[in-house]
Amino acid sequence: MKTLSENRCFGGVQGVYSHASAATGTDMTFGLFLPEAAEDQPVPVLWYLSGLTCTHENAMVKAGAQRWAAEAGIALVFPDTSPRGDDVANDAAFDLGQGAGFYVNATEAPWAPHFQMWDYVAEDLPRLLFSAFPLDDTAQAITGHSMGGHGALTLAMSFPGRFRSVSAFAPICNPTASDWGRKQFTAYLGTDEATWTPHDATLLMRRFGFDGPMLVDQGTADQFLDLLKPETLATAMAERRQGGTIRMQKGYDHSYFFVASFIEDHIAFHANALLR
Amino acid sequence: MKTLSENRCFGGVQGVYSHASAATGTDMTFGLFLPEAAEDQPVPVLWYLSGLTCTHENAMVKAGAQRWAAEAGIALVFPDTSPRGDDVANDAAFDLGQGAGFYVNATEAPWAPHFQMWDYVAEDLPRLLFSAFPLDDTAQAITGHSMGGHGALTLAMSFPGRFRSVSAFAPICNPTASDWGRKQFTAYLGTDEATWTPHDATLLMRRFGFDGPMLVDQGTADQFLDLLKPETLATAMAERRQGGTIRMQKGYDHSYFFVASFIEDHIAFHANALLR
Repeated sequence: MKTLSENRCFGGVQGVYSHASAATGTDMTFGLFLPEAAEDQPVPVLWYLSGLTCTHENAMVKAGAQRWAAEAGIALVFPDTSPRGDDVANDAAFDLGQGAGFYVNATEAPWAPHFQMWDYVAEDLPRLLFSAFPLDDTAQAITGHSMGGHGALTLAMSFPGRFRSVSAFAPICNPTASDWGRKQFTAYLGTDEATWTPHDATLLMRRFGFDGPMLVDQGTADQFLDLLKPETLATAMAERRQGGTIRMQKGYDHSYFFVASFIEDHIAFHANALLR
Repeated sequence: MKTLSENRCFGGVQGVYSHASAATGTDMTFGLFLPEAAEDQPVPVLWYLSGLTCTHENAMVKAGAQRWAAEAGIALVFPDTSPRGDDVANDAAFDLGQGAGFYVNATEAPWAPHFQMWDYVAEDLPRLLFSAFPLDDTAQAITGHSMGGHGALTLAMSFPGRFRSVSAFAPICNPTASDWGRKQFTAYLGTDEATWTPHDATLLMRRFGFDGPMLVDQGTADQFLDLLKPETLATAMAERRQGGTIRMQKGYDHSYFFVASFIEDHIAFHANALLR
């Protein structure tokens, strides 16, 4: 593991590190905020999965999350959204290939060799983090934005007991029925739609639900609302009698100004589960 | 004036606008955050002047200021740091030309035609802002980072009564004695150093001081500390018996992680002066 940068931030340290990932077969970069409390003992962790076009950096510099994580004594992890590099497959579209890993393990050419983002965020990066940093692996929570909200919801429901709480900002809720999903799942997973269902939050909600608190924020002026389909997740949550909150935030769009406006609420929500 | 974008943000609106500036003879872009309170009545204004290489955008997306401005009911203005465009003079160095206007009116070739940033932030942009937006021109305060801290301090001391309070993050405190200053003043203002003195915060402190509260934050791990010279401003403040606070923040560097860590304090500081 290499340290790319470390900046003091709200009494803690905002670091950026790279490491050779066994899952993706590439070097991967991630951001990690450690609050001051981590100097004394392992601290709880909130994962933040980012959206299309993002790297590890966007949320780290734009969301304003460190202020609240520092106060709560919680670490923040900001993984990248795909493998990267000249020898990694890519596509000219912003929503496929590098920057658009969709948190799945690709089985199809040309993506399969490196696009193993499910394993990366579920196994590879956790293994590194919990061995190299003072983090408490029994106190994890997860959130994300857009494609990262999809990742957060699907991971949370796929690993019962791992995450105490889950939240999302404008998540892609039903990718098997959206152009943000069908295109990418076809490319990464192939045309057999049975392989897609483990990666659709609405379908997972119908089958499994989530054993813990859930919070979803969605802007009513989101320019991608038709692709995100929060109504499908809302319906599945109601039908399952899933505990949780979906908030439609009047006038907010898909930008980081939306995320920043509500990150305080999300961190307080997760802190309530992590620090109990 | 053209609206380039408007995003709902902490209950208010983060806008980006461009306008034809009489001062610079170019189109200029600025950011303006209006809190929800501006829907009902004119609100106080905090100016935020940015540093070398920045546009209107850096502080707007990285500083996390809107959270606190929204709560206090204060607007934030984020001007650009220079004129820009293909027909505007430039330099290959990051610290001269476009992105490095230093908040002075250039008198020398090739800069004089457009690099009139003092007039832009002191006259041109205020004229537009107070006619086009619900802002209270009797309740202004000013802050800035690095080169923008230099701009904030020199403007505040040059227009007694205009700004109720002034603060700065890692300001260039003594540019007439620093490589961040001598190079640029020579280029923009010429070799007669008498023309430089109105643009040096330490020299202005010795002659005039500031009739209001002052707050300066400086990281002890700032990689540019030798160029910033906070000790000269501290000395001038002590000699003048200027009221104010200079805080040396242990371990912090020059980045926006430093600014974000203390912006809450600065906005509370200005709110105390603006809302009295």
